[in-house]
Amino acid sequence: MERVPILKIGKTLFVSIQIDLQDESVMQLQEDLAEELAGTGAHGVIIDITAVEIVDSFIGRMLATIGSISRLFDAETVLVGMRPAVAITLTELGLSLRGVRTALNAEKGLALLNGSA
Amino acid sequence: MERVPILKIGKTLFVSIQIDLQDESVMQLQEDLAEELAGTGAHGVIIDITAVEIVDSFIGRMLATIGSISRLFDAETVLVGMRPAVAITLTELGLSLRGVRTALNAEKGLALLNGSA
Repeated sequence: MERVPILKIGKTLFVSIQIDLQDESVMQLQEDLAEELAGTGAHGVIIDITAVEIVDSFIGRMLATIGSISRLFDAETVLVGMRPAVAITLTELGLSLRGVRTALNAEKGLALLNGSA
Repeated sequence: MERVPILKIGKTLFVSIQIDLQDESVMQLQEDLAEELAGTGAHGVIIDITAVEIVDSFIGRMLATIGSISRLFDAETVLVGMRPAVAITLTELGLSLRGVRTALNAEKGLALLNGSA
């Protein structure tokens, strides 16, 4: 099973999704993220989906779930690098990603978390 | 072909290697990185290899090449998240990764680039 690494920089965790996520790796990512949030006291999670070209309801739900988990640890989630086609699919699927904010890129996402955007 | 995304945060580019790199994606990554360095004027490149479990001379050379490319753009390269087995293999292969610095994790790598470590 492939594992998505979580990078911690300052008070923010960075997750860059590049692999095709299967059920097992999604569960692992959510578990790893919860542990990192609990262990580090991070205040923000930036999820980069630049490499994600296709989404389905499974991925959409995963993103929403990550947002919910983060909130339980008092952390905000920002989704960055969304491709236009992905945005259209998420809308068509009716996934509003409540509780997850978005930004154009990692830099703007970080600014959003730091309250300067 | 899968593409490795490059995240820019401040003056630093972050590259997280998660996919099995083939010749083509390595060429693409080097090209993307050169373009980002030229376009953004970034001073540092952090390459996260937490997800890399096995290295061979091909990957080793790629890391050294990225270091050399970055230097041409006046940027320093820091390799972070190396697994013990990977370190042993790189040593056994006789790859010294000249010009590439290492740090335990992304946070320490960033501190290294910012001169505070």
